[in-house]
Amino acid sequence: MVRVGIIGAGHTRFGVLKNDVEELLKDAVDEALSNVDRGIDAREIDAVIVGNFLAEITGVGHLGPLALSALGNLEADAYRVESACASGGLALYQAWQYVRFGVYDNVLVVGVEKMTDSETSRVTEALARASTLKEMAHGFTFPGIFALMAREHMRLYGSGEEHLALVAVKNHENALKNPKAHFRRRISVEDVLNSPIVASPLKLYDCSPISDGAAAVIVSGKPREYTDTPIYIDCMATGYDKPALYDRRDIARLLSVKRAADKVYSLTGLTPKKLDVIELHDCFTIAEIIIYEELGLARRGEGHKLVEEGVTRLDGELPVNPSGGLKAKGHPVGATGVSQAVEMYLQLRGEAGERQVEDAEIGLTANMGGSGASAVVAVYKR
Amino acid sequence: MVRVGIIGAGHTRFGVLKNDVEELLKDAVDEALSNVDRGIDAREIDAVIVGNFLAEITGVGHLGPLALSALGNLEADAYRVESACASGGLALYQAWQYVRFGVYDNVLVVGVEKMTDSETSRVTEALARASTLKEMAHGFTFPGIFALMAREHMRLYGSGEEHLALVAVKNHENALKNPKAHFRRRISVEDVLNSPIVASPLKLYDCSPISDGAAAVIVSGKPREYTDTPIYIDCMATGYDKPALYDRRDIARLLSVKRAADKVYSLTGLTPKKLDVIELHDCFTIAEIIIYEELGLARRGEGHKLVEEGVTRLDGELPVNPSGGLKAKGHPVGATGVSQAVEMYLQLRGEAGERQVEDAEIGLTANMGGSGASAVVAVYKR
Repeated sequence: MVRVGIIGAGHTRFGVLKNDVEELLKDAVDEALSNVDRGIDAREIDAVIVGNFLAEITGVGHLGPLALSALGNLEADAYRVESACASGGLALYQAWQYVRFGVYDNVLVVGVEKMTDSETSRVTEALARASTLKEMAHGFTFPGIFALMAREHMRLYGSGEEHLALVAVKNHENALKNPKAHFRRRISVEDVLNSPIVASPLKLYDCSPISDGAAAVIVSGKPREYTDTPIYIDCMATGYDKPALYDRRDIARLLSVKRAADKVYSLTGLTPKKLDVIELHDCFTIAEIIIYEELGLARRGEGHKLVEEGVTRLDGELPVNPSGGLKAKGHPVGATGVSQAVEMYLQLRGEAGERQVEDAEIGLTANMGGSGASAVVAVYKR
Repeated sequence: MVRVGIIGAGHTRFGVLKNDVEELLKDAVDEALSNVDRGIDAREIDAVIVGNFLAEITGVGHLGPLALSALGNLEADAYRVESACASGGLALYQAWQYVRFGVYDNVLVVGVEKMTDSETSRVTEALARASTLKEMAHGFTFPGIFALMAREHMRLYGSGEEHLALVAVKNHENALKNPKAHFRRRISVEDVLNSPIVASPLKLYDCSPISDGAAAVIVSGKPREYTDTPIYIDCMATGYDKPALYDRRDIARLLSVKRAADKVYSLTGLTPKKLDVIELHDCFTIAEIIIYEELGLARRGEGHKLVEEGVTRLDGELPVNPSGGLKAKGHPVGATGVSQAVEMYLQLRGEAGERQVEDAEIGLTANMGGSGASAVVAVYKR
């Protein structure tokens, strides 16, 4: 089995951008190609995998050939992969498997989403297409779905709105140190609690924003030819759950994340204690708290205590979302999973600037689709 | 390298159906699982790859987990792959590579599209999202794009509207013998020539219809465990071209198809003369004629002569689109590439009923995305 390393990364600013989807793709691809330490030619890329959720609604689909054009190599294979908000993670997972099994030597993975050209209501409806036809027919959108999860977590475990607020405050604090972040503004617990209610108990500042952006990594089966300091993707796994909330036994859980994480822990022998840095899928603040539990960072029903105790702050024992996370870095859906990998590449190479986690050697990412029907977990090592 | 065989196939009727995307998925998956000669359990499926183009517009996205639910196995990996009208072919290509390199043993490939719930104008606009932002901004839709190709072919090579009509007549004739086809009605050259103009020189009967439907195949790296008569996918390849028509040197060509076909011929040593049956991407009648040339069945500029001479009729020397093709079997976009594989499975097993091509031993499929930005070509053997 080939050991898979990341040899280059690109990342546009996340936010409300004037660029269209083709330009976002090209910016991230160009940056990834240009920052490979010993250089790489477009013709050395064997395949491009694009992670994207809503292209057909927000612009054009058929992004594989567009990405080849952006790359300037029509000879490579090209795919667009979709798994709602886990599209980027799934694209990376495909690349990892292809390289590991020797299908390709070098794969360019690029996640992209253009979301801000439409009205907010239209994007919210579009995003609901990560749920099921029946949920959509009953008017469910994602703030409502995650609000139900939050209510249930509060009912079962005594978590409170202040705990959710602390997640937002932490991730905004981190984003202040990320020049690519959508929001670079300090907020307080009071700001969160006083922000307008979106779907009770979730308020505006509990929700990740609607962002444009793209992120890219180049993964290679011969990384040392391109750099002395590749970041290895040590292990990856997917996990799934029933798509509809009404089909699940416990809606205060995100079992797809647990299933993916358990596979990764079992295959690597790692435990949460050995991790130095984590990027996880805080599409809503409650998601970060539940994912703490599913990753085994906290016991079931105790996720909110981690954030209360400051464990996951940048200066805490186990920093989570140093990039600012989806909440404050922004959440261009298809880009998110790849952006998490870019953060790992920077953190483990010691190139994360002001938000650098000291001596970060082992990192984990958790990217999730929809209300948790799909998830992708990865472990990175230097 | 593992030899990859198809061990089961499922196919809904194509047409205006009442079923939603989840039901279409389930029907095709259930049929594919149930007709494996020696049976297969859902738990033996290691991954599901869904080919689909427009899910987010016409229903819901995130079809990977939905397909796992339809399969009844949440432990498998799940992907949704998109490459416009080549989505199904690309899903099959991924499955073929995964199995060939030993990533998975058994992969379920399912193509699906639900298109008829929206107004026609909305679907036509949605389909335009397989082109580029600039083409869309200038009002291009696919009938217009292929009309330009037809005009250029006529100008350069002297093909005529009657040649296009003969393609439609042939494929309608074949569809009469396919119980799953959208149109089962004999038409004449006059019917085509007198049908309403959609985008001159293309008339209504030059265009494939807007259809609902799903198709599935199970591919395996140990096919003989499941059947004595698997159909082997001998070779597959992709090909690409610049996405926008205005970036191409010659718009009477579909170079992505040629690139994919050339790779397949070169890797297998096959020549067109050795093929017994072909299913190719006749989204518009002109596409069938140009693809004849790109596959090397006719010399450049002589594709229309094949249909004039009857070579590609069911009783001709090299039958093309015995299923009725996209034109008459129907074109539920994401399902089309998988449907082509299903037809090969039936033809090479001698199970194609009234439309059986006698002694068919080697078959080829050509599936194309958009105006030819992407293409997937495959060769099948018994």
